Amino acid sequence: MNIPLTPVRFLRYAQQQFPQTTAIVCKGARYTYGQFADRAARLAGALRKAGVKPGDRVAFMSLNCHRLLEAYYGVLEAGAVLLPLNIRLSPQEQSFILNDSGATILFVETEFLPIVDSFRASVPSLKSIVLLDGEPNQNWLAPQNYDAMLAAAEPYQPDITTFDENALAELFYTSGTSANPKGVMLSHRNIYLHALYTCLSFNPSIDMVHLHTIPLFHANGWGAAHFVTQLGGKHVMLQKFDAAEIFRLIETERVTGLGVVPIMALALIHCPQREKHDLSSLDRISIGGAASSPTLVRELEQKLGCLCFSGYGLTETSPTLSTSVSKPGSEWEGEQKFKGQAMTGYAIPGAEMRVVDANDVDVPHDGKTMGEIIARSDGVMAGYWNQPEATAEVMRGGWFHTGDMATIDENDYLLVVDRKKDIIVSGGENVSSLEVEKVLAAHPAIYEVAVIPVPDSKWGELPKALVVLKPGAQATEAEILEFCRSQIAHYKAPRSVEFFESLPKTGTGKVLKKELRKKYWHGQDTIRPERVGN
Amino acid sequence: MNIPLTPVRFLRYAQQQFPQTTAIVCKGARYTYGQFADRAARLAGALRKAGVKPGDRVAFMSLNCHRLLEAYYGVLEAGAVLLPLNIRLSPQEQSFILNDSGATILFVETEFLPIVDSFRASVPSLKSIVLLDGEPNQNWLAPQNYDAMLAAAEPYQPDITTFDENALAELFYTSGTSANPKGVMLSHRNIYLHALYTCLSFNPSIDMVHLHTIPLFHANGWGAAHFVTQLGGKHVMLQKFDAAEIFRLIETERVTGLGVVPIMALALIHCPQREKHDLSSLDRISIGGAASSPTLVRELEQKLGCLCFSGYGLTETSPTLSTSVSKPGSEWEGEQKFKGQAMTGYAIPGAEMRVVDANDVDVPHDGKTMGEIIARSDGVMAGYWNQPEATAEVMRGGWFHTGDMATIDENDYLLVVDRKKDIIVSGGENVSSLEVEKVLAAHPAIYEVAVIPVPDSKWGELPKALVVLKPGAQATEAEILEFCRSQIAHYKAPRSVEFFESLPKTGTGKVLKKELRKKYWHGQDTIRPERVGN
Repeated sequence: MNIPLTPVRFLRYAQQQFPQTTAIVCKGARYTYGQFADRAARLAGALRKAGVKPGDRVAFMSLNCHRLLEAYYGVLEAGAVLLPLNIRLSPQEQSFILNDSGATILFVETEFLPIVDSFRASVPSLKSIVLLDGEPNQNWLAPQNYDAMLAAAEPYQPDITTFDENALAELFYTSGTSANPKGVMLSHRNIYLHALYTCLSFNPSIDMVHLHTIPLFHANGWGAAHFVTQLGGKHVMLQKFDAAEIFRLIETERVTGLGVVPIMALALIHCPQREKHDLSSLDRISIGGAASSPTLVRELEQKLGCLCFSGYGLTETSPTLSTSVSKPGSEWEGEQKFKGQAMTGYAIPGAEMRVVDANDVDVPHDGKTMGEIIARSDGVMAGYWNQPEATAEVMRGGWFHTGDMATIDENDYLLVVDRKKDIIVSGGENVSSLEVEKVLAAHPAIYEVAVIPVPDSKWGELPKALVVLKPGAQATEAEILEFCRSQIAHYKAPRSVEFFESLPKTGTGKVLKKELRKKYWHGQDTIRPERVGN
Repeated sequence: MNIPLTPVRFLRYAQQQFPQTTAIVCKGARYTYGQFADRAARLAGALRKAGVKPGDRVAFMSLNCHRLLEAYYGVLEAGAVLLPLNIRLSPQEQSFILNDSGATILFVETEFLPIVDSFRASVPSLKSIVLLDGEPNQNWLAPQNYDAMLAAAEPYQPDITTFDENALAELFYTSGTSANPKGVMLSHRNIYLHALYTCLSFNPSIDMVHLHTIPLFHANGWGAAHFVTQLGGKHVMLQKFDAAEIFRLIETERVTGLGVVPIMALALIHCPQREKHDLSSLDRISIGGAASSPTLVRELEQKLGCLCFSGYGLTETSPTLSTSVSKPGSEWEGEQKFKGQAMTGYAIPGAEMRVVDANDVDVPHDGKTMGEIIARSDGVMAGYWNQPEATAEVMRGGWFHTGDMATIDENDYLLVVDRKKDIIVSGGENVSSLEVEKVLAAHPAIYEVAVIPVPDSKWGELPKALVVLKPGAQATEAEILEFCRSQIAHYKAPRSVEFFESLPKTGTGKVLKKELRKKYWHGQDTIRPERVGN
């Protein structure tokens, strides 16, 4: 018997088995799994009533909210494709994404109406805009209201055997630093299997309470939209990062797990409210989004009193590929434990990860040699929306090429060292820009830094530091260069420094290194090639 | 990206990630996951060298042993189909199964050579017989030796993308009480997804140590061949049930989990060696195979100091369908907890279970009304081998009909009350033969009892008790009838008793009620119909 693998089954199962159990806590409101599933089914009914057809793209512009979570199931129940927009992108980027995807309907929170207003005219495919929150107010831009639509709709839950597990379920746009955003197509099967694997990898307790600190528009909050539902756990919604509010919610909702990026971890460690709250329910915290450090892991574990480990993944991989939780039978102690848990980690069940050279040949498992991470897993996307060539490029040889450079050690633990396109090749040696930036960031006068390659006739490329100083702080080029040389190999240390007032960034806060490089490569005989397709 | 779902991935993953971790402990010998995977790959190579083609059936007649576990992966690596034989069946049944399946090669342990000798001539399709244990001894019947074959073979591990997830992986014959054994076809996908779900349901600790108390030829030891490997856990092999040996292994191997049938649970509770061993590693015990009781659950929990719960499933469902572990958010206390954990339980993730009447309409969720359990899950078999009609019959309406009668309560917990064909319909009321047997079994003089329907012109059917008394014990028909009437509703109590020296049984110890019924229904105008196809 083959039953289609679709995340819709997660909510159906919870509806059947845990109808009275609290599913969602959102701004004080509480919904049981029975209510959650009913609202999702009503959303499906409302979408069909509104003329949404199977395969149509349904866009959401929303902070973490029970309504966005409902969309993760209701849009799929209707056979449509969920397109969660990253609210941090510029109006131009939003407009590009809506046009590229051909979305016909957009659900939006009141606070984002001005953005929608600014691009509305440039997206003719958009037939209707629905206001997620607030009262039905006949707003000229979004005359319909989400809750009113649900109230007027009939629940729609087709027989599960009518789903196609290979159909498109979710479309997430990656914030490219080098090109227009690309739509990552995740199938029902991708998402379903990914959720099972993350559950297995994290080994959550059966009474899971997950705090959604990561926006659901980032590959569904690192998968939490689905793996929490699958386990009948409690979703606790957080709209915007606020350490004090997080501690309050951990105590009142008895939160067992959450995810953070390193900057959020630092804020949690240093928040004075921390000691006023009972955090004993916390079981585990995963760190992702950027490189962690043993110090950060140790401080989190000691100050928040729970297991803390790293994870790694991309939108293209649903997202989780690796975890740094210790392997069965391994007995890490003391600093070894924190060092291990700060690594990128090893492939979770269902995933395979390799580190390869430019010819896709595995590099030695020595913890030193750099190569690109390539992966195979059931969570790897179906492809980029309407971009067969870009898809073929990253999927070459049947493996997804991540564009991330890493080392791999004898125990198969990976450590990401840089984005492939930001690696500096100087005198035949690979230099990780991230590694050099980490050293410079520790300089007391430096607020922000980017290290990029500049052309050199002898060495091919040389590292250059682009530095923003802290307000009122002072440092000379010579001091900074010497500071760096005292701490890392000379071939890695920048040969020059340039000072900036600020560094250009993408909507998600990534430094636009490609933009910064342009100036130094202008007029060169050889334009610095992009080293990876994405 | 779609990667075929095959259990072969479980061992490949463990080989990659946990090569030095102990995988198997078998009669004192220990194998790492690296060795386990290498031996499985060599078995695949040896099978191909021996001429085994994709799709060929490879039979094993073996107690629990690392070699049988290797076959669960090696046979599949070769693209062939594993056929584990139930060693308790008669030579006639073994012969039937080997002929029905068309197996071409049989692996056998020395102690079963006499059985093989007795049916060898009747199975002409069998090209070769290989001895699993002992020295290569040029035994005329089984001239080849397993370990020698492996040593001479090259490891074979084809690219995982070449597998077909819907191909047949395992063939298990059910021991029918009413017809010849039927071959249950489980696909790679069936087994793969079933293993993921059982892992999720059992929520095992990451350092899992599983004691194989259940024979691997029973739907691969209730799935343990795969879910333990998937988690990189340690398989501890037990050849024959022995309570003292179990306690010794729990202590020395730090066992975390095992499965028992009720009679094994009783032996564990009453074994005097129990108190001499450190059982602190035990995390959970699952009871299956037959109805449990709150008393049994309580005693197991109290005397072995771990969580104890029930599970339910059939060979046709890979096997697990339900668990009685408490649901998220439920707070059972005291006797309520033991009563709940003794029930058949609720559907595990990935499974749907319904209790329906003769027209496949759901019965009320009142914990009283009986109906047949029907199920839908990714673990439900592809069908019966070469029996499309029998397959269509049990799969009607897209749901697998279990042939088990149960009640279902308001929390979706099921309680199996009887096999459908053993239910007695008296005056329009359903009477569970199991329920009546349980009452009678508590009579001090009764050793064994079967309750069957006999024809009655007024009531349609009436319950009759077929009783075997304990050696030296005495009881009259009147005493037994009165004993029963004092404890259950009169319409359920037998109206007559017949005494037997012993009751006829199948190879797996199930009482042949159909045989027993024949005598009483002979010459009736209406032959009692079989109420279910299996």
